[in-house]
Amino acid sequence: MTTWVQREIRLQPQPRGFHLVTREVLGALPEIDNVEVGLLHLLILHTSASLTLNENASPDVRRDFETWFNEAVPERASYWTHTLEGADDMPAHIKAALLGPSLTLPLNHGRLALGTWQGIYLCEHRDRGGSRSLVATMWGSTGED
Amino acid sequence: MTTWVQREIRLQPQPRGFHLVTREVLGALPEIDNVEVGLLHLLILHTSASLTLNENASPDVRRDFETWFNEAVPERASYWTHTLEGADDMPAHIKAALLGPSLTLPLNHGRLALGTWQGIYLCEHRDRGGSRSLVATMWGSTGED
Amino acid sequence: MTTWVQREIRLQPQPRGFHLVTREVLGALPEIDNVEVGLLHLLILHTSASLTLNENASPDVRRDFETWFNEAVPERASYWTHTLEGADDMPAHIKAALLGPSLTLPLNHGRLALGTWQGIYLCEHRDRGGSRSLVATMWGSTGED
Repeated sequence: MTTWVQREIRLQPQPRGFHLVTREVLGALPEIDNVEVGLLHLLILHTSASLTLNENASPDVRRDFETWFNEAVPERASYWTHTLEGADDMPAHIKAALLGPSLTLPLNHGRLALGTWQGIYLCEHRDRGGSRSLVATMWGSTGED
Repeated sequence: MTTWVQREIRLQPQPRGFHLVTREVLGALPEIDNVEVGLLHLLILHTSASLTLNENASPDVRRDFETWFNEAVPERASYWTHTLEGADDMPAHIKAALLGPSLTLPLNHGRLALGTWQGIYLCEHRDRGGSRSLVATMWGSTGED
Repeated sequence: MTTWVQREIRLQPQPRGFHLVTREVLGALPEIDNVEVGLLHLLILHTSASLTLNENASPDVRRDFETWFNEAVPERASYWTHTLEGADDMPAHIKAALLGPSLTLPLNHGRLALGTWQGIYLCEHRDRGGSRSLVATMWGSTGED
């Protein structure tokens, strides 16, 4: 039997930068326990923040992400025309598209089937992005007919 | 009951740049109306165009996307070796990989569950890419046993 | 009836660069033959290698991918702080996030429904990454009630 769960999750507001949110996301999805084999899809409902999966141990990795993206997508470059929402806005849209708005992650025996060093990042590209919302959709087999 | 729909969608040809195609895609998928909870997956069948989700209101955002990607992945750089299909070809492959060939989007009560400002972009990275094709796959629960 | 298959696939070790692995992946998933309509999800269980879909014919395209990513995410830049795992490590994390850790691909009549020129790339961003593992999850309709 295929089970479906879909719910909106409102994340804690974060400062600009890259943040580990694996526990916060899983805490909002207790039904994962019942999935034998399935998938979890997360979509961030914003165009200036994004989701990715990366190293879950060293804070300096997440700091270097912020540094590199600021180098690659500079604020106050002469070529931006969409500037009326602030210098951080248009770079935030580009960064969000490079990293992507969604993640699809396998579920196995009631757990996320990730690598040892993988964690879910909320990538906050605005100076004051506020609370960000996700739509989480889980579907899979519960192992019962 | 899980329902499945899969179909190829041929998009209108677009000039090089970033284009909103949400309505065009939805118009080809009337069965979304019947999905209580589910997902829509879109794959573009090309390696020099891509799909992303971003700001659906300001044309200047889409123009700045084109500008930034042309700055970041320059034509006629001295390091390209794959040049026989034109100066726009190899940069198009890189841009397509950065943005990605597919989108997975949640469905809820017969509608795409997107943020207010999110729209589907067709990212046309070639000068004359012609018509681009997607495979759309929808699956979900119709709410009936 | 929805069928589910989930399995870990250990890929052959590859040197740093971009490698076509479509056949290797499909060879590990004989059950695709039985899927009438469905999807295949692949997640790489590492944070310094990635997956993408791109041109499957010209080796020079894959070489130019390696060149561009090395230009865009330089080793030994003065801004890196996470350097204790080697000069190739932090750039590998950024490249992996830009390309992404997963692919979702449509299945139709027992085959991957890709474009003519599309192939699955394993993107190895470390100098000595060793063997990389994927979690493959397939789900779909077998066409039987």
